[in-house]
Amino acid sequence: MIMDAAKVHIFDTTLRDGEQVPGCQLNTEEKVIVAQALENLGVDIIEAGFPISSPGDFEAVEAVCRAVSEPTICALSRAVKKDIDVAAKALRYAKHGRIHTGIGTSAYHIQHKFNSNPEEIIRRGVEAVKYAKGLTDEVEFYAEDAGRTDNAFLAQVVEAMIDAGADVVNIPDTTGYCLPNEYGEKIAYLKQHVSNIDRAIISTHCHNDLGMATANSIAGVMNGARQIEVTMNGIGERAGNTSLEEVAMILKSHQHLNLYTKIQSIQLAKMSKLISSMMRMPVQPNKAIVGRNAFAHSSGIHQDGMLKHRENYEIIDPKEVGVESSEIILTARSGRAALRHRLECLGHTVEPQRLDNLYEKFLEMADEKKVIEDGDLCHLVAS
Amino acid sequence: MIMDAAKVHIFDTTLRDGEQVPGCQLNTEEKVIVAQALENLGVDIIEAGFPISSPGDFEAVEAVCRAVSEPTICALSRAVKKDIDVAAKALRYAKHGRIHTGIGTSAYHIQHKFNSNPEEIIRRGVEAVKYAKGLTDEVEFYAEDAGRTDNAFLAQVVEAMIDAGADVVNIPDTTGYCLPNEYGEKIAYLKQHVSNIDRAIISTHCHNDLGMATANSIAGVMNGARQIEVTMNGIGERAGNTSLEEVAMILKSHQHLNLYTKIQSIQLAKMSKLISSMMRMPVQPNKAIVGRNAFAHSSGIHQDGMLKHRENYEIIDPKEVGVESSEIILTARSGRAALRHRLECLGHTVEPQRLDNLYEKFLEMADEKKVIEDGDLCHLVAS
Repeated sequence: MIMDAAKVHIFDTTLRDGEQVPGCQLNTEEKVIVAQALENLGVDIIEAGFPISSPGDFEAVEAVCRAVSEPTICALSRAVKKDIDVAAKALRYAKHGRIHTGIGTSAYHIQHKFNSNPEEIIRRGVEAVKYAKGLTDEVEFYAEDAGRTDNAFLAQVVEAMIDAGADVVNIPDTTGYCLPNEYGEKIAYLKQHVSNIDRAIISTHCHNDLGMATANSIAGVMNGARQIEVTMNGIGERAGNTSLEEVAMILKSHQHLNLYTKIQSIQLAKMSKLISSMMRMPVQPNKAIVGRNAFAHSSGIHQDGMLKHRENYEIIDPKEVGVESSEIILTARSGRAALRHRLECLGHTVEPQRLDNLYEKFLEMADEKKVIEDGDLCHLVAS
Repeated sequence: MIMDAAKVHIFDTTLRDGEQVPGCQLNTEEKVIVAQALENLGVDIIEAGFPISSPGDFEAVEAVCRAVSEPTICALSRAVKKDIDVAAKALRYAKHGRIHTGIGTSAYHIQHKFNSNPEEIIRRGVEAVKYAKGLTDEVEFYAEDAGRTDNAFLAQVVEAMIDAGADVVNIPDTTGYCLPNEYGEKIAYLKQHVSNIDRAIISTHCHNDLGMATANSIAGVMNGARQIEVTMNGIGERAGNTSLEEVAMILKSHQHLNLYTKIQSIQLAKMSKLISSMMRMPVQPNKAIVGRNAFAHSSGIHQDGMLKHRENYEIIDPKEVGVESSEIILTARSGRAALRHRLECLGHTVEPQRLDNLYEKFLEMADEKKVIEDGDLCHLVAS
């Protein structure tokens, strides 16, 4: 694994953490279509599934390995030999294969899920990593519920897994509980306290239960992580995962962070629609980057400002994510500037006095009709 | 204004920043229903509209003032006498009224929107604050595009506005550009460099263009802000505003921050549905706190963990936000533990050997059918 200090690897788990969501299940053919689209988008690693979970998932991981060549293909497993064997088998045809194995490390998980103790957890993790290492190109270890794991113990776990051969160490905020400063400090702690940390890539895997998955992931890379686990449109278990489109555009629009990804942002809008329709998961109109309204301006103050200078109200040119242009939508909150602009687009140049008259009628119509279309304006001008 | 160091005021702008979104317009009667629901929810301030924008909006602000008594009612205006006069008039019947006035302070806005200079911007702001102060109970000043405003100049602006009588100073990240550490540092800078800052409340107003509105708002209160401007479901201009439900539940679930709001969280699910249906803005299934899947568990690993101990995978009890219970949904990613649990709920106790057999058939069915309902299970057991 070549290390480029500025490169942030994008690990997409739409087909694993996303696909396990109620109603989102895909068949093998659909998964191959998604994987090929992710390859074109520039994703570095595709987590294609959890092969032991069902025969259909095994078959899909195998098919994805045959269908794409550039990204690494990753398969999930628990820290259990049988899981790892099946994952390795599903990855046989991968150009670059990675097994993702791990175990819960928080006090909650150790006690209530495994009825175990810290030493035993480390032993099981080490055994799994060593075993997986013999069967595939790369091994990633996840410390499940790392978000609620004591940092000192987490550092011990991570050090042991890197010693056992882990190439990537994944620090999931499984329950979506961390605040960005807490999550960032956790990553910084590992950078400082794990003696062999430079031999592995630290990965973030954040859930959005409190709406902070994206901010947590960014706090992670600002503190030394170099892989972000994401899904398209932020789909996933419960409130979902970090959104691919959000982290990609944050790193692109915040050049001062000196970090980059390989994501071809111009494909984001199209990719979002593919996932939304194929996985039957609607994207809300106010979703960042890919929502229908993400580049729509409706208030008079904003429309006026946009018409004077786009950057007054927009930090991203919609063309960068594959959206044709910003929208100026006419409602009762629109001002004279937007009305005049739209009338001009329709070929009507109006004098200030006439504009005042039309604007008054326009507001009455808009209070009534909510959204005013071009046809309404033609009617207004003609009347 | 009495200051309680731990109290975070919730300023809801669903009826102003939310309502201006294409397709979300409400009539007066609907706005009154929303305002009353917000009062029951425990919101401290309701921004009811922008009275100068249209006759319909003026009428709605007036009606909201008559209909609610506990929260302060706020009306928006530009730093323009005519706007302020109309806002004051619309607030005549408010028990507690607040005029929200302001002007752009970033270099972008000063140059490209106002074609002005920093001194002139401060002069216009001061004049507006003083004028509004004579017409209503409280004045809030917004420094539009504060997110991209130089901190030293912003401190000058804020100091001048507090001297002029502003009770609340609002620091909007208008374009949704800030990272949480940047936004937090901005608020900390104001606390340190504005000599009269203790005479006013600092307010956050964050947009979600890069998916970080919630994290930025929390960074704001962690650094001294004591009001958060929000909308229900995060609706609003473009990618929307900070979500009320997210900040309320973050402060509630992170007791170590020693901050609280008056939000009655048990009403959140119901409130979300009211806004979504009335404003015709769907909430995506993976929306934090209020999405349909926010408390739905589908993967085998998570289901097994949940059944052993709820807190393995949940940081919020769904009952706290008015959702009956967590859901365990059966798909091809479910494990034996979830299958056995559901069979037991249906009255079928099965031996381990029989469970293995049923589980294999269950997986075949789930690979095919995607989601397995109770009826399917009865069929499976009978076959």
